[in-house]
Amino acid sequence: MARDPNCVFCKIVAGEIPAKKVYEDDLVVAFHDINPRTPVHILIVPKEHIVSANDATEAHRDALGQLFIAARQVAESTGVAKTGYRLLVNNGPHAGQEVMHLHMHLFGGQPLGPMVMPR
Amino acid sequence: MARDPNCVFCKIVAGEIPAKKVYEDDLVVAFHDINPRTPVHILIVPKEHIVSANDATEAHRDALGQLFIAARQVAESTGVAKTGYRLLVNNGPHAGQEVMHLHMHLFGGQPLGPMVMPR
Repeated sequence: MARDPNCVFCKIVAGEIPAKKVYEDDLVVAFHDINPRTPVHILIVPKEHIVSANDATEAHRDALGQLFIAARQVAESTGVAKTGYRLLVNNGPHAGQEVMHLHMHLFGGQPLGPMVMPR
Repeated sequence: MARDPNCVFCKIVAGEIPAKKVYEDDLVVAFHDINPRTPVHILIVPKEHIVSANDATEAHRDALGQLFIAARQVAESTGVAKTGYRLLVNNGPHAGQEVMHLHMHLFGGQPLGPMVMPR
């Protein structure tokens, strides 16, 4: 499994940096964002180091599909499955991607407003 | 493959409603949003009728992973792969999900601002 020794999410996957994990399986791990923007704000990441969706190939299909299965379980365990939640993945500069390891944000616990800010 | 005869996205998948398709394979289809919020605004949907991430199971893993592989190809073909893009899936009331067939928005072509509106 590809790994980047300087990547903060690879270090969380390996247990070298602490995180408040809420879900884990063979393919993905989910943990609380350290700077939550909503009452529920979880990050779900593939264990393999995938930089962004620009690198998504058939070899990653299982892990990327598993992000959604993990999201379902995280939504249930955090109590937002029925009220609703937004899943969001930033890729590259215009999206403001900050960590160069693909990660899915799960936002919930309040009405989430428009998808994109009016300009 | 599960289908809902009243679902607008199932009808687009079946070719019964026209859409400006930009990508299609065995598992997913991508087309222009009819009400674009950004210069590039594409919807990527599994061909199977999956209501939301609340219904994501192992049986859907391939199709859900394929959403990301399609997103890469759509980002390349629409010219936003390098400038960046945001992938977003609304699930349920707090997220404002409007069509009850899971769909991934791809936003690009401009800086996309904060992920969640300040309250």
